[in-house]
Amino acid sequence: MRKELSRLRDLDRERGLLVHVGALLSWDQDTNMPPKAVGERSQQIAYLEGLAHDKFVVPEIGQLLGALGSTSLQPLGDSSLEPRERAYLRVLRREYDRATKLPSDLVSALARETSLAHAAWIEAREKDDFPAFVPHLERIIELKKAQASCLSGASMAAGATHYDALLDLFEPGSSEASIGQVFAGLRAQLVALLGKITSRPQVDDSFLRRSCSESRQAAMSAWVMGLLSYDLSRGRLDTVAHPFTTTLGVDDVRITTRYIEGYFPSGLFSTIHETGHALYEQGIAPGEEYGRSLLHEAASMAVHESQSRLWENIVGRSGAFWKGNYARLAELAGDSLRGVGLEAFVKSINRVEPSLIRTEADEVTYSLHIILRFELEAELISGRLAAKDLSGAWNAKMKELLGVVPPDDASGCLQDVHWSAGLFGYFPSYALGNIYASQFWAAMKKELPDIDTRIEAGDLASLLLWLRSNIHAQGATLLPGELLQRVTGSSLDPAHFVSYLNQKYSRIYGF
Amino acid sequence: MRKELSRLRDLDRERGLLVHVGALLSWDQDTNMPPKAVGERSQQIAYLEGLAHDKFVVPEIGQLLGALGSTSLQPLGDSSLEPRERAYLRVLRREYDRATKLPSDLVSALARETSLAHAAWIEAREKDDFPAFVPHLERIIELKKAQASCLSGASMAAGATHYDALLDLFEPGSSEASIGQVFAGLRAQLVALLGKITSRPQVDDSFLRRSCSESRQAAMSAWVMGLLSYDLSRGRLDTVAHPFTTTLGVDDVRITTRYIEGYFPSGLFSTIHETGHALYEQGIAPGEEYGRSLLHEAASMAVHESQSRLWENIVGRSGAFWKGNYARLAELAGDSLRGVGLEAFVKSINRVEPSLIRTEADEVTYSLHIILRFELEAELISGRLAAKDLSGAWNAKMKELLGVVPPDDASGCLQDVHWSAGLFGYFPSYALGNIYASQFWAAMKKELPDIDTRIEAGDLASLLLWLRSNIHAQGATLLPGELLQRVTGSSLDPAHFVSYLNQKYSRIYGF
Repeated sequence: MRKELSRLRDLDRERGLLVHVGALLSWDQDTNMPPKAVGERSQQIAYLEGLAHDKFVVPEIGQLLGALGSTSLQPLGDSSLEPRERAYLRVLRREYDRATKLPSDLVSALARETSLAHAAWIEAREKDDFPAFVPHLERIIELKKAQASCLSGASMAAGATHYDALLDLFEPGSSEASIGQVFAGLRAQLVALLGKITSRPQVDDSFLRRSCSESRQAAMSAWVMGLLSYDLSRGRLDTVAHPFTTTLGVDDVRITTRYIEGYFPSGLFSTIHETGHALYEQGIAPGEEYGRSLLHEAASMAVHESQSRLWENIVGRSGAFWKGNYARLAELAGDSLRGVGLEAFVKSINRVEPSLIRTEADEVTYSLHIILRFELEAELISGRLAAKDLSGAWNAKMKELLGVVPPDDASGCLQDVHWSAGLFGYFPSYALGNIYASQFWAAMKKELPDIDTRIEAGDLASLLLWLRSNIHAQGATLLPGELLQRVTGSSLDPAHFVSYLNQKYSRIYGF
Repeated sequence: MRKELSRLRDLDRERGLLVHVGALLSWDQDTNMPPKAVGERSQQIAYLEGLAHDKFVVPEIGQLLGALGSTSLQPLGDSSLEPRERAYLRVLRREYDRATKLPSDLVSALARETSLAHAAWIEAREKDDFPAFVPHLERIIELKKAQASCLSGASMAAGATHYDALLDLFEPGSSEASIGQVFAGLRAQLVALLGKITSRPQVDDSFLRRSCSESRQAAMSAWVMGLLSYDLSRGRLDTVAHPFTTTLGVDDVRITTRYIEGYFPSGLFSTIHETGHALYEQGIAPGEEYGRSLLHEAASMAVHESQSRLWENIVGRSGAFWKGNYARLAELAGDSLRGVGLEAFVKSINRVEPSLIRTEADEVTYSLHIILRFELEAELISGRLAAKDLSGAWNAKMKELLGVVPPDDASGCLQDVHWSAGLFGYFPSYALGNIYASQFWAAMKKELPDIDTRIEAGDLASLLLWLRSNIHAQGATLLPGELLQRVTGSSLDPAHFVSYLNQKYSRIYGF
C-alpha cells in the first residue's frame, strides 16, 4: 500500500475513534445519564463532533487524496491501486468534499436555526400551532438550499435539483428523479393493495393489548436476540424512549428497545428491528486494517434499513418463523397469549389499518407515509410548495394516499422531528429500505430456494451467512446501487416488494 | 479578571471536558461495555488522555502563568489578583509543572512497564510466585525514582526524598517526614488499642452472613442514598466488581457498589462510603466560571477519603445513626436481621479482628495495614529495602502490627494492585483520610455540639451543610494542610482519631 494511503487511513481512523467516543456520549445520554447533566453533555458532544470534523478538514487530507489521483469528479483515484483501495478513496473523497465544501458560517447558521426550530417544533406540536412553526421551517429550507448549492458546487449536473444533493447525503448516487420514479410506481400499487385489504373483514388483534410485564418482555427480547445470533460479547440491549442502534466501536454495537405493558409486540418487534441493524454493523468486515475507517460503515441509510426490516418484517412477521418459535413465545408471554393459536397470532401481527402516525404504521401503509413526505419535501425544497401551505398539502395527500385526514397538525405535518432538525432527504431511506429488503430477499431465494423450510426448522444461520457475505461484509466498499446490482443483478425495482406484500396479504386477508 | 486568567481558564476547562469524557469511557467499561470491546476501549481512553495532556503542556499555558507572575517557586502569582484567582494559579502551576517536567520517554517507559507489571502481578498472585514479580517491581521502583527526580527538579529542598515527590502527587504539601511522624504516633496507639480489644470476648456477627437477595440489598442502597441526600438528578448508582466514585461532569457524579449475597453489610457500607465521596464531589462549588477547571476538584485524595470514611464509619457505624434507622433497615433486610436487636447489630458492624487483607479490614486495623505499606514503600523507594526482600519484610511487619502472618504472598505482599500500577505514595491517603475525618468531626462538634441528638432524630442535613460550607465548596482552593488549619485551627493530629476509636470501642468491647 502506498504510504499516502496508509497516512490517510491513520487520519481517518483517528476521526473514527472520536466518532465512536461521541456515540458513547449520546448512548449514555439516552440510557443512563442523570437528568441535570444534559447541558454539559451537549457541550461534550459538540466538542467531540468539532474535533472529529477538524481532524478531517485538514489540507493534508486533500493533498494526500490529490497525490493518489482522487478528485471530486474522479474520486476512485489512480487505476494502479487495488479495487478496495480505490473504493476507499472514493468514500474518503466524498466525505472530505462534504466536510470542506460548507462554509463555517453556513454550518453555524444551520446549527443555530435547527436548535431554535427544534424548540419551536416541540412547542408548536404541543399547542397544535403550525403557523408558529412556519417561519422556522422557511429559514431551514433556505439554509438547506444553500447547503445543497455548496455541496453540488460546480459539479452540479444539468437538470440536477437542490433536493438531489440532500438525498445524496443519505443515499449516495440517488436523485429526486430516480427515487420519484420508483416511488410513483410503488404508490399506485400500495394504494390498490390497501383498497383490497380494507374491503375485507379486519383481523383480530385485541389479545395483543393484554397486559404483559416488563420482565416477560425482557425475556422475549433476550430470547429473540439469541435466535437471530446477535453477538452479545460485542453488543448489549438497553431500554429507552425511542429505540435505536449505535456503534461505539468495531466490537461494540449496542441496541435499545422499549416495552409497552399494554402492547408487547411493540417491544418484541423493536428488538428484532434493532437486532437487524446490529447484525449488519457486526458483520461489516472490509479488512482489519480498515477498522474505524469510513470503509467500515454501512453502504447507506437505506441499505441499513433494509437489514432491520428484512429481519423485522420478512422474517419476524412470517408464518415460517413463528411455526417453530410460537410455542416458546406463548410460554414467555404467559396470559397475554393464552388461548391464542399460531395462525391467529401471525394474522394479528400483520394487521393493516390506515392511520395518522408514521411510527405506528403497518408494513403496507408505512411506505405510503414515506412517499407522502418525499413528495412534500421535494416540493418544499424546489419552492413549488410554500412552507405556510404545508399543512393543507399534507392533509390532502393523507386523504389521497391513506384515506384518512388528521384532525390537527400535531397528528399531521408536525408529527415528525426530522424537518425541524434539518433532515431533508432522510425520509426516503425508510421506504427504500423496504424495497431493498424484498429485492435482496428475492436474490437470496435463488441461492437458497428452501429458505422457508429452513426458517421453519429453526435455521436462521443460513440467511445470516448469506447476508454477511453478500451485503454486510463489504461495508461501504460499494455504492448502494452497485451493491444492489452485484447482489441482485438489477437496479432498484419495487416489483419484488409489491409482489411480496400481495402474496402475504392475500393470504392474511383472503382475497 | 485579567484576560490571561480568562484564557487560562478556557484552556483548563477544555482539558477538564476531555477528562470527563475519559471518565465516561472508564465508567462504561466497568459497568456496561461488552467484553470484546476492551481492546478498542483502551485505545480510546489512551487517546483521550493524550489529548487532555497535549492540551495542557502547550507553551501558551507556561507563558500565561508567567505573565501573571506565577512561577514554580512562587505559584500564587501577582499579589494584585483576588485570593481565589491566586489559589487557581497555584493549582494550575502545580499541574503544569507536573505535566511538563516529565520527559516523554519516561512517561512511555512508565506506561509500558506498568502495563507489563500489571499482567505479571496477576499471574504472580495466581501462582503465589513473588520472585517472578520482583524484576518488574525493581524496574518500576527505578522509574518512580526517576519520575520523582524530574518532579522535584531544582526545587528539591535539602533533606527532601524521592518519596516526598511521590507523596506530593496525592497529598500536596505532605512529606515522608511529616506523614512518618503522624503515623508513628498512630501506630503505637492502634497496636495498644488492638491489644485491648483482642483481650476481650469477641462480638457476634454470625447473623450478618445470612443470605440476603440482591434486590433487598439494592433497596437498602436506594434508601441509604436518600437518607444521605445524594442528589440522583446529578448522579446514579450501578454495580461493579470493585466499587468506585467517578465524576463525568459538574452535574454528573456517579457511584458504584457491589452486593455479596452472604454478607449484606459489604454492599450497604460500600454504598455509604461511595455516597460520601459523591457528596463531596457534588458539593464542590468554587464559582460557576470555574466548573470543569482544576479548582473544581477535591483538595486531595486524603480529604476525599475523609469524606467517604466520615459517612461510612463515624456516621454509618454509629449507634446514633442506627437508633432512628435500624427498624427500617431490619424491614428491608427481612430474614437477614430477624430477631437481631439494635445493640447487637451496631456491635456486629463494628467487629474488630486482625486479618490479612486490607480491603476487608475493620476501622481499627485498617490504618495499620496502611502504615505497613507506607513504611515499606518509603523503604523501597529510598533503597533501604530491596524489592526481593519485600515478602520477608511484609510478613515481619504483619506480625509486628497485626499479630498475624500471611501463609503465602498472594494474601501478603501481592494482594494489592497499586505497586504494579506504579502507584507509590497513594496508600497513605487512606489512613490520612481517617485522621482528617476525626479531626473535622471534632471541629464540627464545637459548632454543632448536639450532633448526636440530631443524627438520632434523623437530621443528617445539619452535618451535610456543615461539610458543604466548610470543606466541599472550596474545591481545591486550599491545600489540604491549609484547609485543615482553616477548619480545625490546627495541623494534622491523629489524637482525635485515636480518641474517637478508644471511646467507641471501649463501649463495644467493654474495657
